Amino acid sequence: MKIISLNKYNSSNTFKYFMEWLQDDLNSVNKVILDNLSNNSPLISEMSNYIISSGGKRIRPLITLGVTRLCNYSGNRHIGLAAVIEFIHTATLLHDDVIDNSKKRRGKKTANFVWDNKSSILVGDFFLSKAFRVLVNDGSLKCIDIISKVSEKIAFGEVKQLISVGNLKLSESDYLETISYKTAELFSAACQMASEISEIKEEQKKSLKDFGMFLGIAYQIVDDTLDYFSEEKKLGKELGNDFIENKITLPLILAYKRSNKKEKNFLEHLINKEKITKSDLSWVIQKMNHYDVLKDCIRKVKYFSTMAKDSLGSFSKNQAKDKLIELVDFLVLRKS
Amino acid sequence: MKIISLNKYNSSNTFKYFMEWLQDDLNSVNKVILDNLSNNSPLISEMSNYIISSGGKRIRPLITLGVTRLCNYSGNRHIGLAAVIEFIHTATLLHDDVIDNSKKRRGKKTANFVWDNKSSILVGDFFLSKAFRVLVNDGSLKCIDIISKVSEKIAFGEVKQLISVGNLKLSESDYLETISYKTAELFSAACQMASEISEIKEEQKKSLKDFGMFLGIAYQIVDDTLDYFSEEKKLGKELGNDFIENKITLPLILAYKRSNKKEKNFLEHLINKEKITKSDLSWVIQKMNHYDVLKDCIRKVKYFSTMAKDSLGSFSKNQAKDKLIELVDFLVLRKS
Repeated sequence: MKIISLNKYNSSNTFKYFMEWLQDDLNSVNKVILDNLSNNSPLISEMSNYIISSGGKRIRPLITLGVTRLCNYSGNRHIGLAAVIEFIHTATLLHDDVIDNSKKRRGKKTANFVWDNKSSILVGDFFLSKAFRVLVNDGSLKCIDIISKVSEKIAFGEVKQLISVGNLKLSESDYLETISYKTAELFSAACQMASEISEIKEEQKKSLKDFGMFLGIAYQIVDDTLDYFSEEKKLGKELGNDFIENKITLPLILAYKRSNKKEKNFLEHLINKEKITKSDLSWVIQKMNHYDVLKDCIRKVKYFSTMAKDSLGSFSKNQAKDKLIELVDFLVLRKS
Repeated sequence: MKIISLNKYNSSNTFKYFMEWLQDDLNSVNKVILDNLSNNSPLISEMSNYIISSGGKRIRPLITLGVTRLCNYSGNRHIGLAAVIEFIHTATLLHDDVIDNSKKRRGKKTANFVWDNKSSILVGDFFLSKAFRVLVNDGSLKCIDIISKVSEKIAFGEVKQLISVGNLKLSESDYLETISYKTAELFSAACQMASEISEIKEEQKKSLKDFGMFLGIAYQIVDDTLDYFSEEKKLGKELGNDFIENKITLPLILAYKRSNKKEKNFLEHLINKEKITKSDLSWVIQKMNHYDVLKDCIRKVKYFSTMAKDSLGSFSKNQAKDKLIELVDFLVLRKS
């Protein structure tokens, strides 16, 4: 089985510097999150602490923080709004892990595995409500509008993904629509809220909305590509989870479309199989390699990440812009 | 096994007249709900139609509609806000049924049984988001505040209920707190939104908030009492579901507190048993009868329903007030 790392780019320092740049703000965001979760039942507090400290990179709230710098925003509303983004994201993760019956995320046991599905559903609902509580305190109807829209879209995207499970005939445009809803819209909302509280032109607001969308799409394609091609995942024996769960993502869509009739039949057989073996998965990845799937996935990632970076064109060059462009590169060149 | 109907009061006409009084408004609410659920993925549309047409009484939105009449409200914002209340309620039901692993509700198969848990979680999330979408269109930050608060409280109440499963030592005040959060707060929110859009005194707003709380508490105690004592449920063989699910509700709390040591031990044994038999349940209900549990549950219901009715004291006597008082009587004297 030929496994290729997505890129040789060593990006860990980029992200480290990005984090350092926003560290004070991020600490404040973490404080808002933890303050909102204290004084609750022990179950909520324990689960919250477990999830919040489980090593997520806080990419979405960091985007809100970074974009407010780009917009020269000088108040402190961005802290609460970044926390809102993380609340929505965490609520989604909690429900996703139940839906996917996941046992591990970021190398740690998932909450539904440590506690149970019931608790994950309820604490997810609690986080979602908390997001709106913080928004009401912020007081902007426009931001509530952004978040209620994205929250609806995420649920819609997850439903789209659910009904496409096992459907190898899923089109690439359907796939793109699904990941836009389930992932990219939240990246976009993170940017929209930052621009909403800043004094920038309408045209720039529109650009930032696009920036988030394109970045989110690129991010999810990378995620879906790494699921088949990450060297780290190969070591952790987590490769091909999407295939095992019958999730139809870009690498599989491309592999299926490019396959001949016999291969198509075999892929259909595999996707309907009760239990996927290591050699089944090797066969799938070998076909992907044969049909140059990785190269084209990377090409598509570049297409969207370039559009993301170009969306910042209406902003003058400065530190914040450089940092955000570096963040795009880090997110699309990451290896896990 | 002695089964007593909660009351001989024939209340079906009361509710019929109450519905007729608000029928036009209720039709508009149903239209808002269905309009918001069309143009979605087939899964969402099908599940929505199934749930919405599953014969719920629409009690919570009807409360919003009835209270706006009491307040002489003359606009049309109450329609959307009543729909919001039903969205929140339906989202809660969908998640509850997954958590309780329920197969039937109102004599019909639950959505999680017809479809699956995954769909129920996601469509629940979708309904919750829809509630906020409709609120944003309404445009009142105060109403968004009310709903985000109640949404948080419901999740909190559900968590409280979850962690009290099987704990026979639960106090009556803990029980009251749990049902306030998980049920009564939404009744109260239904009233608060109606009063928020009306031109009434602050003191009357406060009274309506209380009205909903007391009515909601009474409503839930009736529900929990019927679970052990309803003749209809006995016929449908659904009696004692709460006991089977180890949910600690008022009848069981009273029975346990009044039991002698030997009976307490046996109740503890039963609650830890893998499978509850018919004769186990008969024994429990026999103890409840022995210790006059039903009579005291009814007494407590009357206590809260009387407070609900008295909360309307600051409103002059008119048709709307009479109707709402009749509704209270209907809800607490119902038999199923």
